[in-house]
Amino acid sequence: MHNGRKGKEVSSRSMASKTQVGFIGLGNMGKPMAKNLLKHGYPVIATDVFPESCKELQELGAQIVDNPAEVADQADRIVTMLPSSPNVIEVYTGPNGILKKVKKGSLLIDSSTIDPAVSKEMAVAAEKMGAVFMDAPVSGGVGAASSGKLTFMVGGVEEEFTAAQELLTCMGANVVYCGAVGTGQAAKICNNMLLAIGMIGTSETMNLGIRLGLDPKLLAKILNMSSGRCWSSDTYNPVPGVMEGVPSGNHYQGGFGTQLMAKDLGLAQTTATNTKTPVPLGSLAHQIYRMMCARGYAGKDFS
Amino acid sequence: MHNGRKGKEVSSRSMASKTQVGFIGLGNMGKPMAKNLLKHGYPVIATDVFPESCKELQELGAQIVDNPAEVADQADRIVTMLPSSPNVIEVYTGPNGILKKVKKGSLLIDSSTIDPAVSKEMAVAAEKMGAVFMDAPVSGGVGAASSGKLTFMVGGVEEEFTAAQELLTCMGANVVYCGAVGTGQAAKICNNMLLAIGMIGTSETMNLGIRLGLDPKLLAKILNMSSGRCWSSDTYNPVPGVMEGVPSGNHYQGGFGTQLMAKDLGLAQTTATNTKTPVPLGSLAHQIYRMMCARGYAGKDFS
Amino acid sequence: MHNGRKGKEVSSRSMASKTQVGFIGLGNMGKPMAKNLLKHGYPVIATDVFPESCKELQELGAQIVDNPAEVADQADRIVTMLPSSPNVIEVYTGPNGILKKVKKGSLLIDSSTIDPAVSKEMAVAAEKMGAVFMDAPVSGGVGAASSGKLTFMVGGVEEEFTAAQELLTCMGANVVYCGAVGTGQAAKICNNMLLAIGMIGTSETMNLGIRLGLDPKLLAKILNMSSGRCWSSDTYNPVPGVMEGVPSGNHYQGGFGTQLMAKDLGLAQTTATNTKTPVPLGSLAHQIYRMMCARGYAGKDFS
Amino acid sequence: MHNGRKGKEVSSRSMASKTQVGFIGLGNMGKPMAKNLLKHGYPVIATDVFPESCKELQELGAQIVDNPAEVADQADRIVTMLPSSPNVIEVYTGPNGILKKVKKGSLLIDSSTIDPAVSKEMAVAAEKMGAVFMDAPVSGGVGAASSGKLTFMVGGVEEEFTAAQELLTCMGANVVYCGAVGTGQAAKICNNMLLAIGMIGTSETMNLGIRLGLDPKLLAKILNMSSGRCWSSDTYNPVPGVMEGVPSGNHYQGGFGTQLMAKDLGLAQTTATNTKTPVPLGSLAHQIYRMMCARGYAGKDFS
Repeated sequence: MHNGRKGKEVSSRSMASKTQVGFIGLGNMGKPMAKNLLKHGYPVIATDVFPESCKELQELGAQIVDNPAEVADQADRIVTMLPSSPNVIEVYTGPNGILKKVKKGSLLIDSSTIDPAVSKEMAVAAEKMGAVFMDAPVSGGVGAASSGKLTFMVGGVEEEFTAAQELLTCMGANVVYCGAVGTGQAAKICNNMLLAIGMIGTSETMNLGIRLGLDPKLLAKILNMSSGRCWSSDTYNPVPGVMEGVPSGNHYQGGFGTQLMAKDLGLAQTTATNTKTPVPLGSLAHQIYRMMCARGYAGKDFS
Repeated sequence: MHNGRKGKEVSSRSMASKTQVGFIGLGNMGKPMAKNLLKHGYPVIATDVFPESCKELQELGAQIVDNPAEVADQADRIVTMLPSSPNVIEVYTGPNGILKKVKKGSLLIDSSTIDPAVSKEMAVAAEKMGAVFMDAPVSGGVGAASSGKLTFMVGGVEEEFTAAQELLTCMGANVVYCGAVGTGQAAKICNNMLLAIGMIGTSETMNLGIRLGLDPKLLAKILNMSSGRCWSSDTYNPVPGVMEGVPSGNHYQGGFGTQLMAKDLGLAQTTATNTKTPVPLGSLAHQIYRMMCARGYAGKDFS
Repeated sequence: MHNGRKGKEVSSRSMASKTQVGFIGLGNMGKPMAKNLLKHGYPVIATDVFPESCKELQELGAQIVDNPAEVADQADRIVTMLPSSPNVIEVYTGPNGILKKVKKGSLLIDSSTIDPAVSKEMAVAAEKMGAVFMDAPVSGGVGAASSGKLTFMVGGVEEEFTAAQELLTCMGANVVYCGAVGTGQAAKICNNMLLAIGMIGTSETMNLGIRLGLDPKLLAKILNMSSGRCWSSDTYNPVPGVMEGVPSGNHYQGGFGTQLMAKDLGLAQTTATNTKTPVPLGSLAHQIYRMMCARGYAGKDFS
Repeated sequence: MHNGRKGKEVSSRSMASKTQVGFIGLGNMGKPMAKNLLKHGYPVIATDVFPESCKELQELGAQIVDNPAEVADQADRIVTMLPSSPNVIEVYTGPNGILKKVKKGSLLIDSSTIDPAVSKEMAVAAEKMGAVFMDAPVSGGVGAASSGKLTFMVGGVEEEFTAAQELLTCMGANVVYCGAVGTGQAAKICNNMLLAIGMIGTSETMNLGIRLGLDPKLLAKILNMSSGRCWSSDTYNPVPGVMEGVPSGNHYQGGFGTQLMAKDLGLAQTTATNTKTPVPLGSLAHQIYRMMCARGYAGKDFS
């Protein structure tokens, strides 16, 4: 983990006291993140394709502009939080995209969860314009976004990490440097693939144990003191009644949607296919979440 | 977990101070277990199909007899530790089996890992002869067997648990009561199925991350502070160099053999098939370990 | 395929003109099979645990007795058609089982679909009583049973095949000799495992093609003239509207139930586990049919 | 299937008697295809990144130029045969790509096997330049390419199909119209996914049957007369000795490489992920071929 290395002076930009920060993408995650920047005293200049998403932020003091190019015209530090790869490509390289008006030396931080290959493309495109692109996907849901407790996994040139960290610590509890651009995405994808495997594995195991006559609480206790232990068994158990305060105890409402998990597993599958890496369990986990979406559980928690 | 409930007086047998204890099955696991009984001052009467296995124990003071029936003729508490279901059936119900000469009120504890359905059959057969059968499979390998640090998962009538515990604590650090007969096996099978899923999942994930440019140690650190965390990632990491003192750091020598894991997953599959429980990841994990065995890695550690 | 080899004289039994034939198990399949024996002029002596199943056959002229032992007491050729391994074990070796009163030299033909290991056990038990056991599971459903168009896959000593064939040709269009006892089951299990894989594979493929913009009929045509061709694509296509006269065109009513397919795949899985054979796709197909049963489609056709 | 519909006059181009045809990509497949165009009397103008690939064709009378743009400068009908999506993108839209100098009304036929989404992109880009793009991937290997026996699956505007067919029939025995642009790829991907499932399924099934004591030839015969029948069991059986003239009988030399199958399954996986289509068996088949490549069997036949 990287703990605020200082390094040589990078640019006046990252040292600047609270100058304007751009924010693009004010959805369920982006909005509370932008609010946290405001709370920490940063002037925010923002945009989103849905005007209604902008209004709330405007009332809190943010400046709203028409499109990403205009954000880039005014701010030299920009955070983006978008649903998927095509949105990121559009917001960065589209006709009204950031790169149309980006200033030399700008720091562009993308917190979307996308294919690391796209992150790398964006970094190359940004570099051509003299700007720096970093990928910084998050772990943690809407709750963590609101309370500023997200974990950021950051990829990009190490010299710029301190500058990125300054902003990200306003929105998250952990900011982890992962390596070259794209490795933030890689870390997120890897974690979520293993999470999905652990969750389905825990569900199968708990179900099998119950059918074999074991009490679910006792089984969870045994697994958690043994080598079967995992986050899904000890922190987010999928069987109703085993734990309190998790979605399984509340009809699988809230939490992390099955559809989102399927999307992340799709990314894992695509990167694995592209790198010719065998991921049999990750692949089957993807298919299982995909089948659940097809059967109408897309909006339920992934557990 | 069950903490030494006393209950009503059960029988003079379980309260008896150190009278003879029978032990059948002196293999890699059974021999050190029997030695620990001797160390705790119990006279041991033992047998095994391989005479050479008996010799070492004889030199340490155990009495050796010809077959299980003769053990049952002299001891009213017997521990069995055998490779698989057919061996258990033979040792209990065969022509020279325990049940041919078992005394009324005897306590029969089977520490083999077998199909819980067979454990239930043995319990019924024992009950017909007035004896009590409990299943008590272990978690932990040869090292834990030698040092008396095994975990026992015990299924059977609750009234007899204290009596079983008296013996099992000589050989293990944890003795967990799981419920009716067969639930000890169920708990073990469930744990190992989830362990296998976690291990393969961790291997796939670490491999994918490395191919995506992440440092393996850093990736393990990120997983272990996130929701991807599991025993296989934080305690027994399968990538050489990430952790010390685990088989992955030693050419996958020692540890828990791939063949044994395949056997346990076969049991999980069989019980799932019999109870019509879907276990897609458990099933694929089984197939993967089976393919590894077919390719000549049977003797390597399962990580 | 075996074409009615004659061989040396086997016994007077198989050469006997139409003496009584026993039939045990008058379910959906067994009843029409027994009727076909009657139609071919064989006197039938039958039994079933459900008295109402016997009545219809009795009205057609069959003699009904109380249990399998009584059937064996009167008939020296017996056909059994039962739901699963435990029923077969009970009917052959139970307290009122066939082997209690079987005559020396009797021919026992089991058309149930069960674990080949159980077939072998029954053969050994029958041999001890001087009788011959053959496994002869069927391919084809209730319709084929009614019209006498079943396929029988027969395992057992080759000398007795002609005798078995005499009876089986009354009930089926194909009678195939497969080898030693148990190989009839093996052939059936293998065929159904590959069928299940082909069916799910065809469903996935057709679904993917349709989502990619292909017309389903055209896609089926292309597959069927190419290397993707299989029985499920060219004879029993699972997409409604592609073919006529198949269950997919009729809300998946009729045909071969998902539950039965799940049972056969469970047998395939068990035999694969016992012989340590990796069957990854067969295993996943089993899990998928198992999940469909768990979701309430147990009674629908497997396509 | 489309049988040479005439339709309204399309353009003078497609009716032109044997004017020059461009050919880009002279690899194992492309070279024999281009030769067949020469044999049918078409003047060929070709290019390839490897000069040595061009030489042989030059000696047969083809004109060789430096890059795709120069081909497009001279020919208004061009066939491309390239290894993968990035090559296609480069050859069509790169700095020396076809579209730099393509003539209005040109017909561009891509026989590469790539992601249908890329085919659609190329069609859009071609349309902007006034040209027509069709995807026409092939089924059949180097042998079929040499003997002109390939099957072409063609996607694109129906009006142009006759023009494409004129050229493709010189190189293939079957030319099938599949629908809008991209459906040629879709049909190919679907066929190969089902082929892969059938092949692995057949291998598992044959292996299981052999372990259960069945003779491999007999098992193949039974499957082929039953519902387990598929192309892999009746035409390309993977067990040595069951059939003659297939790679399994020749140490799995020749035929269709495991690596190529893994590539096609990767495309199937990617299109399934993008269209959110569950393909559990297709996905596992992909993983299995990927694991085989990782273990060093990349160059062997996929059976």
